[in-house]
Amino acid sequence: MGDVSGDLAALRPLWSARGVAVIGATDREGALGRLPLDFLRRYGYAAELVPVRPDGGRVAGLDSYPSVVAARAAGREVDLAMIMVSAARVPGAVEDCIAAGLPVAIICSSGFAETGAEGAALQAGVVARAREGGLRLLGPNCIGTVGVATGQVTSFSPLFSGDQTELVPGPIGFVSQSGALGYGAVSLAFERGLGLGWVVNTGNEADITSVEAMRAVAAEEGCRGILAYVESLTDLEGLRSLTATGVPVAVLKAGRSDAGARAAASHTGALAAADRVVDAALRQVGGVRVDDVEELLDVGDVMTCPRPAGRRVAVVTTSGGSGILAADAIEAQGLSLAPLSEATKRALDEIVPAFGSSANPVDVTASVMSNGELFDRALDAIADDDGVDAVVACFCVLTGQDVDDVVSSLARVAARSGKPVVVARTGADHLAPDARRRMREAGIPSYPTPARAVRALAALCDFAAAAPAAHSTQSPPTTHPLESAVPAPGDHASEQELKELLAAHGIPVPAGRLATGADDARSAVDECGGRAVFKAVVPGLVHKSDAGGVVVGVTQETAADAYTRLAGLGGQVWVEELVEGGVEALVGLAPSPLGTVLTVGVGGLLTEVVADVALRVLPVSRDEIDAMLDESRLGRLLAGVRGAPAADREALVDLVARLCEIATAWPAGLELDLNPVTALPRGHGARVLDAAYVAPQGD
Amino acid sequence: MGDVSGDLAALRPLWSARGVAVIGATDREGALGRLPLDFLRRYGYAAELVPVRPDGGRVAGLDSYPSVVAARAAGREVDLAMIMVSAARVPGAVEDCIAAGLPVAIICSSGFAETGAEGAALQAGVVARAREGGLRLLGPNCIGTVGVATGQVTSFSPLFSGDQTELVPGPIGFVSQSGALGYGAVSLAFERGLGLGWVVNTGNEADITSVEAMRAVAAEEGCRGILAYVESLTDLEGLRSLTATGVPVAVLKAGRSDAGARAAASHTGALAAADRVVDAALRQVGGVRVDDVEELLDVGDVMTCPRPAGRRVAVVTTSGGSGILAADAIEAQGLSLAPLSEATKRALDEIVPAFGSSANPVDVTASVMSNGELFDRALDAIADDDGVDAVVACFCVLTGQDVDDVVSSLARVAARSGKPVVVARTGADHLAPDARRRMREAGIPSYPTPARAVRALAALCDFAAAAPAAHSTQSPPTTHPLESAVPAPGDHASEQELKELLAAHGIPVPAGRLATGADDARSAVDECGGRAVFKAVVPGLVHKSDAGGVVVGVTQETAADAYTRLAGLGGQVWVEELVEGGVEALVGLAPSPLGTVLTVGVGGLLTEVVADVALRVLPVSRDEIDAMLDESRLGRLLAGVRGAPAADREALVDLVARLCEIATAWPAGLELDLNPVTALPRGHGARVLDAAYVAPQGD
Repeated sequence: MGDVSGDLAALRPLWSARGVAVIGATDREGALGRLPLDFLRRYGYAAELVPVRPDGGRVAGLDSYPSVVAARAAGREVDLAMIMVSAARVPGAVEDCIAAGLPVAIICSSGFAETGAEGAALQAGVVARAREGGLRLLGPNCIGTVGVATGQVTSFSPLFSGDQTELVPGPIGFVSQSGALGYGAVSLAFERGLGLGWVVNTGNEADITSVEAMRAVAAEEGCRGILAYVESLTDLEGLRSLTATGVPVAVLKAGRSDAGARAAASHTGALAAADRVVDAALRQVGGVRVDDVEELLDVGDVMTCPRPAGRRVAVVTTSGGSGILAADAIEAQGLSLAPLSEATKRALDEIVPAFGSSANPVDVTASVMSNGELFDRALDAIADDDGVDAVVACFCVLTGQDVDDVVSSLARVAARSGKPVVVARTGADHLAPDARRRMREAGIPSYPTPARAVRALAALCDFAAAAPAAHSTQSPPTTHPLESAVPAPGDHASEQELKELLAAHGIPVPAGRLATGADDARSAVDECGGRAVFKAVVPGLVHKSDAGGVVVGVTQETAADAYTRLAGLGGQVWVEELVEGGVEALVGLAPSPLGTVLTVGVGGLLTEVVADVALRVLPVSRDEIDAMLDESRLGRLLAGVRGAPAADREALVDLVARLCEIATAWPAGLELDLNPVTALPRGHGARVLDAAYVAPQGD
Repeated sequence: MGDVSGDLAALRPLWSARGVAVIGATDREGALGRLPLDFLRRYGYAAELVPVRPDGGRVAGLDSYPSVVAARAAGREVDLAMIMVSAARVPGAVEDCIAAGLPVAIICSSGFAETGAEGAALQAGVVARAREGGLRLLGPNCIGTVGVATGQVTSFSPLFSGDQTELVPGPIGFVSQSGALGYGAVSLAFERGLGLGWVVNTGNEADITSVEAMRAVAAEEGCRGILAYVESLTDLEGLRSLTATGVPVAVLKAGRSDAGARAAASHTGALAAADRVVDAALRQVGGVRVDDVEELLDVGDVMTCPRPAGRRVAVVTTSGGSGILAADAIEAQGLSLAPLSEATKRALDEIVPAFGSSANPVDVTASVMSNGELFDRALDAIADDDGVDAVVACFCVLTGQDVDDVVSSLARVAARSGKPVVVARTGADHLAPDARRRMREAGIPSYPTPARAVRALAALCDFAAAAPAAHSTQSPPTTHPLESAVPAPGDHASEQELKELLAAHGIPVPAGRLATGADDARSAVDECGGRAVFKAVVPGLVHKSDAGGVVVGVTQETAADAYTRLAGLGGQVWVEELVEGGVEALVGLAPSPLGTVLTVGVGGLLTEVVADVALRVLPVSRDEIDAMLDESRLGRLLAGVRGAPAADREALVDLVARLCEIATAWPAGLELDLNPVTALPRGHGARVLDAAYVAPQGD
């Protein structure tokens, strides 16, 4: 894992080198050690180009040097090396880079952690030595980087061999853990005209991680968005720092499925965070997660649009069908179809014929769209509506002059209104060969279908909504560590010990105590108000209910019997106040590679059946805890169903917030399950009815 | 709505006309009434072309006739008319077509139901007259049809004006309710090389519906699949007949969202079936539903592939990243990543280097893929594995000869194995300009990303799985009508009347009776075994629980009080056996435009909170009812959670099956809610605990 506190500037030569050394350069055409030299020239890299090879022969018409040190001694200005020798020779190349004082090198070679334990050891040694020597490493097992603006193709991807391949510069950075997939995606970005400024393939991520590369790219002047493909994600703080800069980030995190996660783990060797944790963490830091390469690029296309003030979308179309599909997508993506104001509708009624629609989705009809002046008026009316945050324009088969006029009208309204306009043009490219380019130039991303246009717009809305949120997480969360540290529970804390600990720190639990015998049990029931729960306290007995170790609703009459039965299990008997009539929640804390995960959801008898919880990575604010309740069916249960009274939601939130405060002081890696926590009717508070604890592993 | 019993052959001229009359033809270049004539000539339609206009002037160099009757009298062979006159003149044109004995006409004109009540009346009159006269009508408000093989472009879509537009013939039919979106999608199909044989735009569907058009196209020789965009769907029997022919059908049904459904309803004027009902109905008949135009075409691309025997997929790739994304998609789409046999793994271990993977997803590495012989051996090993039903090959940036070799290898293994092979090639087209076409020719559909390739493959698996199922629905379902009709409940049947009716027909309900007074109530409790439920029987009181009209757990001691309280609500008091300890289900029947819908899911207190049900359109088999239980969380509840005993699942299935039998004899449009139905522990049966009934509207 990279040292994220390191100076990001050390990574700049990856795309803005003053000079590049290729260690392992070869003269043979088409050889891997030749390709970067050819590519750097072909794409116009104008700075120093230094082949390094032991024999000092000429490579691609260039003088070579036996080492980077020798090249520097000869006055060659080099601040980046591509290491393209066999794995066994990599340590020597790294020594050379250190000796030459390079800030960073790309290890293209494979044969490291991806091949097994031996390779992993070699990799660890190389990284350790580089850290000592102040050298940052990209890779190994990677295809390199591109600084698009300067033609710095420090990569050997076959993409750059393509006869028709051209670099398309732009303000978006692209970071990929995978080389082949990453450069495949880059080729698709260029094909659609999505300009990139920086491309980084991180490979094994022995030193520099995807997140660090993303942060370094985002810090470059002119960077307006980051697209990333990653297989492992652990550096949540790094991501938080990144999104806090305001640069939008979209992540294609592979390994959603169990099968995919296993494949990713064997591919990267990294411990995977559960997919739902990744989802929650990305949302918390304001990143957008996507599911496919095409979606990643679709989101890249909207990153440079103005940010919408909200999620209310107007659809304008000449195709009723496209309008319906757009409306479907708007709902599916969590946006809303803007209800147009009466004034807007009146204005549209004067423009739109009877067989169109002046309600949203607005079907202006082909006759209006082919009349520039009328179409302009309709667009203005829609974009001027205060209830409209963004416009989706959908059209289908349009040709020649019609397309030009439509594009001009859309460009005008986009510029005038400052609201984002995205287009779905469902028709073959040859019908309007210039349409996509012209729209892109006007800042209007276009997609082949309404669903894709709306999905990209939803990401834009997420970026807009996240901007302040990402900022606010910079301010201290309300669940900050306590001044006085709270001792963690012991390794094998029983339910009762755990409850006493929780109670001692202000978390409400039912009143209770150990009974010393059958008679004492009767007294204890009395102290509990006449009805109690008896629980067997047997060291090692975790699933008490399944083992018959819990008796609910014990009265004076049944106390002795119940005591005798539970004592027979071989331990003590705990007698506890019976707390009835609440809504049962599950509250849990568990470790993950991204940090401690808080789980809140439907608990008690319904836990497995409903299986509906919300997740956050700590720290969380009280507001976030409150929001979590409504992300599962717990929110509805708390509101009271089928005549049940509303539950004490506030007390439940207090309880969870307090738990998070206490847990902050506990060692990382703890796993705590409070299930059920009952939320009683409003005003009556909440109580932890059961608690189980797993001590951190390896501490 | 179309007469689906009509002869589908009458529709053939829509794509295979012996001669076409254009009513309302005009000579002016670019005018709508001129376009079809130009298009028919441009795309090579070789049969009769007859302009019809009152003045008999020449049109596009052709003699015109004042009527179709006159043209036929002059010996012109015409069996299809395009009606392109203003709405007011359409009735006259229809009379002409009837008089000329045409089987079918396309009304392109707008100004009918889509404009409001007046247009709807005009439309109804035209349809009524056409039915009398034996003329079938497509439209109105549509853009026409295409018979691709003969160049019959009986359409005025601007698609056919495109300089570069060429028809791409193929075995797939395309039916769209929307004209603009439909022809936009057709242009995208042609652009990707997906050949179509028949294109139909149904517009207002005043007579011929989408489903009827789909059936007629499917009946054409050589048709191997149907793609459809529809906004309203009501003819389930028609769909069933269609899928029963074995022709695969994919439907993009717009209006998934509430907003979209409202827009669709205002667009088509049709009553919409709830979206979940559409889902269930399509699945029941073996159709595949898609969510976007691109997905529709993606599915079109796999329709001609061999059908896989199961859902176990092997992934072969040179990109670890693509393999992970494919694995993710396989799980998301309900397919499974095939575990390879030991023999297969051994064979692969001999081929695949250490930094690849011989487990699925199989990363053969670029070095193997660039070696034709090794790659062939790897593919053979995978495709020969009996545990593999289909292969997804993923590659990224590949250029020149590499692509050619890979395509040859894939084509060979696809032909040899008879298993479907689909490809994800994540890279710009210009890197391998011929790859897509060559793969298509080899029967290998290719997509730009793993997710899209896998989604299309999942549809293919659905088609394969549906083929026998669609057939079996042709045999009588087990829930066929009873010989002796069961009387439907009365209009305002009370819970008790309803239960008596159900009980009389073999559906178990708790024992119970009316109490005549407080003393009698006590006796009734005794008859019930000492614990009872009291329910107020008050005409018009539907939500008894909310009104305090239900008392649960009444004993001898509390019987008099409970009786007095409920009697005070103004009606009678029903005393019923208390049935406890079961799992509560919801069983409902409700009308829909697609037929009576059966709902089974989680009931009782959890109904609204869990909100988890499965749907089917009647008739259903007992097996389908059984399968429904596992589509919601009810299945898990019935199996017994948190120590609860397993419930009598079989008795619940019996109860539902019996209900469906009885309901078959009841009038259409009834709405019946049995909630809860309790399933007691295994061996103890199931009981209907509450029942409510809404009589059909308007009967």
